[in-house]
Amino acid sequence: MTLRLHNFFRSSTSARVRAALNIKGLTYEYVPYVLRAGETRTKEYLERNAQGLIPTLELPDGTHLSQSLPIMEWLEEMHPTPPLLPRNPIARARVRGLAQMLACEVHPLNNLRVLLHLRDTYGADDAAQATWFVHWVKTTFDAMEAALADNSDTGRFCHGDSPSMADICLVAQVWNNRRFDLKPDHWPTLARIHAACLDVPEIAAAAPEQQPDAA
Amino acid sequence: MTLRLHNFFRSSTSARVRAALNIKGLTYEYVPYVLRAGETRTKEYLERNAQGLIPTLELPDGTHLSQSLPIMEWLEEMHPTPPLLPRNPIARARVRGLAQMLACEVHPLNNLRVLLHLRDTYGADDAAQATWFVHWVKTTFDAMEAALADNSDTGRFCHGDSPSMADICLVAQVWNNRRFDLKPDHWPTLARIHAACLDVPEIAAAAPEQQPDAA
Repeated sequence: MTLRLHNFFRSSTSARVRAALNIKGLTYEYVPYVLRAGETRTKEYLERNAQGLIPTLELPDGTHLSQSLPIMEWLEEMHPTPPLLPRNPIARARVRGLAQMLACEVHPLNNLRVLLHLRDTYGADDAAQATWFVHWVKTTFDAMEAALADNSDTGRFCHGDSPSMADICLVAQVWNNRRFDLKPDHWPTLARIHAACLDVPEIAAAAPEQQPDAA
Repeated sequence: MTLRLHNFFRSSTSARVRAALNIKGLTYEYVPYVLRAGETRTKEYLERNAQGLIPTLELPDGTHLSQSLPIMEWLEEMHPTPPLLPRNPIARARVRGLAQMLACEVHPLNNLRVLLHLRDTYGADDAAQATWFVHWVKTTFDAMEAALADNSDTGRFCHGDSPSMADICLVAQVWNNRRFDLKPDHWPTLARIHAACLDVPEIAAAAPEQQPDAA
């Protein structure tokens, strides 16, 4: 009876959940999918996750949880230590707001199905897809840099000195950005926090290249 | 000393927070912004919300909270009754997952700045922008219909018989869809739940046309 994570090594939403599971000290069975081969569009997978998206966390009782941030919230409620959210409600709102900046305003615009839709609708080639991807990362990274640099609650990590949901979303997005050769150096606070995240073994172990299905 | 909501009548993320505030029985000062006039891109507003997005909830102590779902989570933590999330952790994950389907996979792809970026980058005219908008609504509404129709936890609302964060996100998206003449009739469960939401006076009062800045 164990947790099963339906995911893909390169998926940044999958990386978020892997990092959260690692920080919580939970072991899980790794179930890989090849997105470009349509493995998340099968009838069997759609019964697990109606959107045909990854990740899905399968619980020992057969329940399937979808969407990475709600999965992290569930982990936080069931396994509160070590925490991925601070205790103070305003601080929790700040961390969730930073996480959501990346989860809403970067990733959904840049995932594979959107890039393919741009190609099919507007003939966007690889270079045009990269321009689109980088545009939305820069738009939100600029705002996130301002929000973090200008706030005394920012510490070694996005909020204080321990990693939270916001840091997990940040490091996963920076991993994703490597596909388009976009380094975090342009955003000094984000780059510093990203480096701090990589010093956390539980986060580093969630990196794409550490997964069994990595090419 | 009151809450101030920086928002815009037609914004669906603003409507989510208005509905949540109304359900919680909280009064607030309504501060309207005209997006197309750049009123959320001023230096003053960017100090409130680094992304230049609405809504922002300003607390009596001067704290500014951004991102609609984290704002709703804060409201839920501070004012737990009536609840916007069920008690059971798996049920909470289900409601948050449904809310996030709309918050991540529909709205960020379809908001004004993305439609304008499509126009500027690919010459997408009004008709092409409408096609893009409808494509992403249909993709997620199809999945949400399947997720709701096929689950015994679905009741009068998305989860059981009282409105939750998921219902609020649904009704706000259906309001947004009216701009492109997209009715919910094609999705029977979504249409039924949307109608049930409109019977809740606190939700109905959050509709765009009920706001002081409605055209």
